[in-house]
Amino acid sequence: MNLPSHLLEQAVQAFSQLPGIGKKTALRLVLHLLKQETAQVEFFAEAVKKMRSEIKFCRRCHNISDGDVCSICSNSVRKQEMICVVESIRDVIAIESTGQYHGTYHVLGGVISPLDGIGPDQLQIETLLDRIHKESAEEIIFALNPTIQGDTTIYYIQKKLTELPNQSLRFTTIARGIAFGGELEYADEMTLARSLQNRLPVEKYVMR
Amino acid sequence: MNLPSHLLEQAVQAFSQLPGIGKKTALRLVLHLLKQETAQVEFFAEAVKKMRSEIKFCRRCHNISDGDVCSICSNSVRKQEMICVVESIRDVIAIESTGQYHGTYHVLGGVISPLDGIGPDQLQIETLLDRIHKESAEEIIFALNPTIQGDTTIYYIQKKLTELPNQSLRFTTIARGIAFGGELEYADEMTLARSLQNRLPVEKYVMR
Repeated sequence: MNLPSHLLEQAVQAFSQLPGIGKKTALRLVLHLLKQETAQVEFFAEAVKKMRSEIKFCRRCHNISDGDVCSICSNSVRKQEMICVVESIRDVIAIESTGQYHGTYHVLGGVISPLDGIGPDQLQIETLLDRIHKESAEEIIFALNPTIQGDTTIYYIQKKLTELPNQSLRFTTIARGIAFGGELEYADEMTLARSLQNRLPVEKYVMR
Repeated sequence: MNLPSHLLEQAVQAFSQLPGIGKKTALRLVLHLLKQETAQVEFFAEAVKKMRSEIKFCRRCHNISDGDVCSICSNSVRKQEMICVVESIRDVIAIESTGQYHGTYHVLGGVISPLDGIGPDQLQIETLLDRIHKESAEEIIFALNPTIQGDTTIYYIQKKLTELPNQSLRFTTIARGIAFGGELEYADEMTLARSLQNRLPVEKYVMR
């Protein structure tokens, strides 16, 4: 693409480095911004810059936070002895939007994946063990994606945790099964088999 | 969506105001930027800000430009007496990328569309008439989208131009027809009828 201005070129270049945005989409976004008021575009740029430089990560659960400790960890209404282990901040946001979970989180920052060079040391596993040890947690809920890497991570963490002298610790994972709106005939055998194995009494099926 | 940080919320808000970008995509882009180096994100923000505040519009053809006159208008190799009238900067970029046009442009900034409240006065039509008058142009090529609004705009400009005392002025429009890769059976009747009406000698068909 031959652009008539160096400044335009640079802005398009910047946008096209974002995931899922090619040169054509980048140009469309930039030309849109060009039509906006200068003040509005400056607000956009400032919001992005400020977000990157000022955002913090909660030192307890490693979730995104405006302060040292995030709003979930500092909320005394939430069950602090219940820890939901997730891969990324996006998972926290997804679970929070259900409004059904009232415990705390621990963001690993990824899953164990030797092929991608990610071992336990690159993840927030040590801090999780530390936290469980110090805080006398009662239940660890693994809410990781159902992949080999996710399962490996669950296995690794559980093994490490059973070495801790905390007898009352419960481990659970989120249920696997047929999604709402999904159709039985298109479900893979693994999911269908598991959903039969872990079938529920009908009275539990109704969402509270 | 319930976001754990005000700064994050603000950045997501800023991104989701761009065309075609919803809240979920905005979050994905923001979380991507959050993973980048601070310097890189600052470069992104600066590029956007600078683009908006420093970009100019060519005072002759109203194309985007780094200076007062754009690189096409100031290029003496290009045929300055040939003016291609287009709707937007995007069209200039599209035509330029073919490498087949060697004249100049005139960006109207839209087309006449009474339903949207856009009349001739909101567009760069007066400046076009002025320019043709002063510069002794020889050919006006209309490269507007084939809509009722586009055709109205062509009609309006042509009527205004025939009032000018410039006898040698030629008017042309880009050819309508079956696109390369298009299939006859799926073409609309209007396009097919026009492409039959304006059929070409075979020797002209081969692209030079």
